[in-house]
Amino acid sequence: MLATKELNHQELKDIIYGAAFLGAGGGGSVVQGMAMVKEVVDSGKRVVLVDLESVKDDGLAVVSAGMGSPAAAKHGWRNEHLPAFDLLEKYLGKKVDYVVPIEIGAGNIAVPLHTAAFRGKYLVDADGAGRAIPELELTTFEIYGVPISPMAISDWEGDGAILFTKDSLKAERIARQIVVAFEGCAGIALYPMSGAKLKNVVIPGTLSLSQKVGSLLRKVREENLDVCEVLSKELRGYVLGVGKVTSKTLEMRGGFDFGVVEVELKGGGKLRVHFKNENIVAERDGKVIAVAPDLICWVTTSGEPLTNVDVDKGMEVAVIGLKAHERLRTEKALRAFKHLYSEVGFNIEYKPIEELIK
Amino acid sequence: MLATKELNHQELKDIIYGAAFLGAGGGGSVVQGMAMVKEVVDSGKRVVLVDLESVKDDGLAVVSAGMGSPAAAKHGWRNEHLPAFDLLEKYLGKKVDYVVPIEIGAGNIAVPLHTAAFRGKYLVDADGAGRAIPELELTTFEIYGVPISPMAISDWEGDGAILFTKDSLKAERIARQIVVAFEGCAGIALYPMSGAKLKNVVIPGTLSLSQKVGSLLRKVREENLDVCEVLSKELRGYVLGVGKVTSKTLEMRGGFDFGVVEVELKGGGKLRVHFKNENIVAERDGKVIAVAPDLICWVTTSGEPLTNVDVDKGMEVAVIGLKAHERLRTEKALRAFKHLYSEVGFNIEYKPIEELIK
Repeated sequence: MLATKELNHQELKDIIYGAAFLGAGGGGSVVQGMAMVKEVVDSGKRVVLVDLESVKDDGLAVVSAGMGSPAAAKHGWRNEHLPAFDLLEKYLGKKVDYVVPIEIGAGNIAVPLHTAAFRGKYLVDADGAGRAIPELELTTFEIYGVPISPMAISDWEGDGAILFTKDSLKAERIARQIVVAFEGCAGIALYPMSGAKLKNVVIPGTLSLSQKVGSLLRKVREENLDVCEVLSKELRGYVLGVGKVTSKTLEMRGGFDFGVVEVELKGGGKLRVHFKNENIVAERDGKVIAVAPDLICWVTTSGEPLTNVDVDKGMEVAVIGLKAHERLRTEKALRAFKHLYSEVGFNIEYKPIEELIK
Repeated sequence: MLATKELNHQELKDIIYGAAFLGAGGGGSVVQGMAMVKEVVDSGKRVVLVDLESVKDDGLAVVSAGMGSPAAAKHGWRNEHLPAFDLLEKYLGKKVDYVVPIEIGAGNIAVPLHTAAFRGKYLVDADGAGRAIPELELTTFEIYGVPISPMAISDWEGDGAILFTKDSLKAERIARQIVVAFEGCAGIALYPMSGAKLKNVVIPGTLSLSQKVGSLLRKVREENLDVCEVLSKELRGYVLGVGKVTSKTLEMRGGFDFGVVEVELKGGGKLRVHFKNENIVAERDGKVIAVAPDLICWVTTSGEPLTNVDVDKGMEVAVIGLKAHERLRTEKALRAFKHLYSEVGFNIEYKPIEELIK
């Protein structure tokens, strides 16, 4: 791609749809994402994507995100990420150049996209996970040692705080409490870093990839194509299974959604996807065929991306596996993901999807 | 007094005892205050008091305090006020010159005294209430419009935040939540202001006054003097009553201690002191004889100052009333105190103690 590229309405919508698929079961809803895109488009603001290689080493990058539960909040989301971004920029006393998504997902892409548009910053074509993840410690920012603080947190009125902590666990503990004071919703701006640092830690090209996936899914819907054929070919994806959702369990433990979705496969057999917010392990007839950080993604056979909130009994779905980026496959990264397997009930070690699927 | 004065061990102890009396029923315990004084003395640090008039207009003053419940905290108090002070000083990017107590009380004087000693700053001979008060909005900082933020809050490890809010209610709401993340104890540093501003808002001379009261009480104990005679003469105080505590009720509502202490008076009749954390209304045989902001103070007839936590059935006590400083008697100030009367059960307007006692 070009070094920078202004995204049009269709491209923005495609990004949201593609990000929903790449969210691997999580990352927020398409509805939430599309509402933010609409706000951006209606306002006439521009979203300018910059590819990671073109980011200037001495530029300043900041992660923009939301925290808390818009569903639980009294008023829903009210663009809390903007005052949080402003608070951090003011604190840093320097112009922020680049806005970076914390992870890929329909909601969690929309927030930094909205910030970039309304604050006139570049949106970086990269993110801190290349998928959605249940915990901050699984971001590449954490894995590759970017300090989380100074971290800004704000409510929609602009009341907030700059946090200074020795690690992200403490920052998250404080921030979660502040979210309570804010009645469920906060904007955050965190991981301020140089462009040079950014290049060394994030997963590159994930917004372009989201856009590509979104446009492919659109084509599938418009031209009534075979979603498995399109995605496996265009994304080098693995079809883990196609069939009908026969059951879904959901249990809330420690602030996370745990559960299993069972799919009765077209050709016979059962596929089970085990999630902690996002999809962690897929097994077919008792054999593990894909594990995080590799991506286990939902899509309806008609081409609608799904999160674990959306997946429901009776749906005709395709489960597509994608290789995680090499930055999520280092020893360090895999160590961070390891605890997830036992949390969803598996005593296993990571193996790459391309080996498991054989 | 001299412009600055280094306080010796005896003077420090007297300040704590006197502050316990002037706390008007609240402000923390003598035990807590004495422990901090001991730490200061053992460390060989100096406490240098500066009188308000000598404060430089372009100097920088900061209020140092604790927040939360050391009793409820897992580990008790661990000098959280020091990293909070450091955090604010670092944020402000300027050397703080003056440490100011938020209010007068055995515990709440000890904290800024400790900060001043361990950070080599002047301790200002003044505070934001001239007594202890149940709510932040009753400080003269609030009454006379000093912005509460930037406000630092920290745990003992130095993890914390700088809060930015439009008012103190929001700051307190956020800070209270952070105290939960800190398991019950936080240090705070707030109301950063110029020396010029400081002079226009605080109650002057209250540490000297504490020291004087402390030394008088010591004299009463050592020389077995009449506490009422000494305090009424030396402080121009009003003896509201002397007798035996016959009952004490205590009810916790909305995070405050509400209650009534009943004293059977020596010469006959009953005195009732109604408190919300601190003493708000004193009535003798149904007649109101003193109301906040005027001070209603506890002392045993043997000369030991008491807070409402210490006062107990069977104690021989003297109840001494003192005129509040004129800065607490302005229309603005009295408006802030007004809601307290109905909260402790009285539908009254403020009248000065010198009129009520007639």
